[in-house]
Amino acid sequence: MSELMTKARQLDAADELAGLRAKFVLDEAVYLDGNSLGALPAAVPGRMEDVVRRQWGALRIRSWEESGWWTAPERIGDRIAPLVGAAPGQIVVGDSTSVNVFKALVAAVRMAAGDGDGRDEILIDATTFPTDGYIAGSAARMTGCTLRPVTPAQVPEALTGRTAAVLLNHVDYRTGRLHDLPSLTAAVHEAGAYAVWDLCHSAGALPVGLDEHGVDLAVGCTYKYLNGGPGSPAYLYVRRELQDRFDSPLPGWNSHAEPFGMRPDYAPAAGAPRGRVGTPDILSMLALEAALEVWDGVPIDAVRAKSLALTDFFLECVAAYVPEGAVESLTPAAHAERGSQVAVRCPDAGDVMKRLIENGVVGDFRPPDVLRFGFTPLYVGFADVERAARILAGILD
Amino acid sequence: MSELMTKARQLDAADELAGLRAKFVLDEAVYLDGNSLGALPAAVPGRMEDVVRRQWGALRIRSWEESGWWTAPERIGDRIAPLVGAAPGQIVVGDSTSVNVFKALVAAVRMAAGDGDGRDEILIDATTFPTDGYIAGSAARMTGCTLRPVTPAQVPEALTGRTAAVLLNHVDYRTGRLHDLPSLTAAVHEAGAYAVWDLCHSAGALPVGLDEHGVDLAVGCTYKYLNGGPGSPAYLYVRRELQDRFDSPLPGWNSHAEPFGMRPDYAPAAGAPRGRVGTPDILSMLALEAALEVWDGVPIDAVRAKSLALTDFFLECVAAYVPEGAVESLTPAAHAERGSQVAVRCPDAGDVMKRLIENGVVGDFRPPDVLRFGFTPLYVGFADVERAARILAGILD
Repeated sequence: MSELMTKARQLDAADELAGLRAKFVLDEAVYLDGNSLGALPAAVPGRMEDVVRRQWGALRIRSWEESGWWTAPERIGDRIAPLVGAAPGQIVVGDSTSVNVFKALVAAVRMAAGDGDGRDEILIDATTFPTDGYIAGSAARMTGCTLRPVTPAQVPEALTGRTAAVLLNHVDYRTGRLHDLPSLTAAVHEAGAYAVWDLCHSAGALPVGLDEHGVDLAVGCTYKYLNGGPGSPAYLYVRRELQDRFDSPLPGWNSHAEPFGMRPDYAPAAGAPRGRVGTPDILSMLALEAALEVWDGVPIDAVRAKSLALTDFFLECVAAYVPEGAVESLTPAAHAERGSQVAVRCPDAGDVMKRLIENGVVGDFRPPDVLRFGFTPLYVGFADVERAARILAGILD
Repeated sequence: MSELMTKARQLDAADELAGLRAKFVLDEAVYLDGNSLGALPAAVPGRMEDVVRRQWGALRIRSWEESGWWTAPERIGDRIAPLVGAAPGQIVVGDSTSVNVFKALVAAVRMAAGDGDGRDEILIDATTFPTDGYIAGSAARMTGCTLRPVTPAQVPEALTGRTAAVLLNHVDYRTGRLHDLPSLTAAVHEAGAYAVWDLCHSAGALPVGLDEHGVDLAVGCTYKYLNGGPGSPAYLYVRRELQDRFDSPLPGWNSHAEPFGMRPDYAPAAGAPRGRVGTPDILSMLALEAALEVWDGVPIDAVRAKSLALTDFFLECVAAYVPEGAVESLTPAAHAERGSQVAVRCPDAGDVMKRLIENGVVGDFRPPDVLRFGFTPLYVGFADVERAARILAGILD
């Protein structure tokens, strides 16, 4: 057994989160694509059976009250809250990430307009996952703003008295780079603008600290590190102090102060429910609720520590096994700048990923030349990491 | 046995759709709330088990291709298409009805703007389900239009050279009144405006004829007469000739011409996928797909004929059993003006509905004084109808 295999065993033996793996349905493959779709939590199938057969099939409409369907968006939001450093009552679950980006960004621009100093520019992360940019373009167009893409590092110098809102990704979907949320948020605030963060690639993998750092609005998906299932609903965070000023571009009946009053005039609900729109997709939402139970008693700091240990070890194994120069890492070496994935660039990356998958190592390929490996600390172990790097080396050799 | 009980037996015996009831999970209650939440189709639990355990649990991300997750929104749209009189390739499933109303109405206003004659008014059904009005208000605000609520009957005279778009409900959620889609659509077109129809309370209960009548855009939910499950995704219809001019206010990455190209600039997909936004909620969506299988080989004209026979018979039984003057029907007597529900008004309607439910007749209450009874032709029979009217009479007596 190689030195790194021995080290992997030792790391696994010392891993205080190792027991969580049993709470997921996994097979012999090394699954390093949890940053695309999280693995199935073992509690979900039984819960879905109950939701479908008993709650829908037997109780039918009574479930809106009796099974807690109606309040699910806020209740599940409160389950996500501690994972992103938010006190209860500030997160609501529902709709896709794209739709929530639209709500958050339009609301932020309206808050800036309410401040009365004529701000008309939205700054956006130029390296963002594209949907954020497309939606930000629409938000700008519909609010009379201009959209200005800059790299996150350029944000402090790009902020001006015209800046209304800034939309940033906490972790870059491609490179895995972690951006400095506390200092960027502070810079945005110093310029008198509103900070909107996209947490898709950070929530569930590392501490976010929304309340602590005074983030204004945030959105995120739940099907990556939160394991909510394919296309499970996204969430929207609106800081408590801003909730009364949250003016939604999608004021559906679920966000009304009195949804069953059926009143012709809109009056927004107080608190997190103001971020709701239409009828929540209960099946997807309650699968997410069951999936979130794996987090009970799991400290996010321990998750972060293991995540860094996993990516460190992967980089170590790649350096040891892979011929020098065969791959180039896009992921920052500094812990403070690293999310929970490692992205490497190599020629023929599409083919390499295909062969990796054939050999039981599941990551994904992002054109033109990037191999992405996501490390979900809840179910990936150090032996998985060593094996993935070893198989990658074999393919590249 | 009373005369009406005998008649119910005869009607059930002659009902060519009676066999469909076995395709649903029902119990001894008379379920007349399918216009709120359709009953569980028997095929759904097994399908969900497969989707959760095999497609998500075992295949994981491979299911985006191998299990057809990626193309589900268009594929399921094409399954809904024949039920609303649409040729394939014009309907996409996803998001809530409210979100789709926003897409459709903003797109309609932009089409009108593209026509170049400075139209800046949206007409809306003043008796609409409130969410349509709230969302239309936002669409108007964000496109620089004014919103003018009128009753559907007033639409023809309210149309002017300023009218950009008209949003109407095919069937009124409260009274069950069916509006005249062909003639109203023709009037809207004659005025040079765009017609947007909300089909929530008609699709699956009666023929709609979207293509035949030249409807421009339409939206609808799938959890009522289509039995898709609580909060199952809604759908958006864009007439083929208008697809190239559909300019979405929610241009998420799923609507991009090349969604996996990860390009910074937005370029809309051709056809129905242009109406997509973010990642589709697969669990809810595939439950809907299984639910739609009950429609295989079911002609919508036969469904309409049975629906009218059911509501006729309910009105007949109510007239025979309920003391004169105890209830007042809000549902038009004329078939051409009746959807698939009967709404009656009575004092203490909330308490009456509570006692009906206790006695095994499930309808719903809409403030301040309306009892709603929905008749889903796929699983409601004539004996159910007679029993419901008899129990209602007993409570009111």
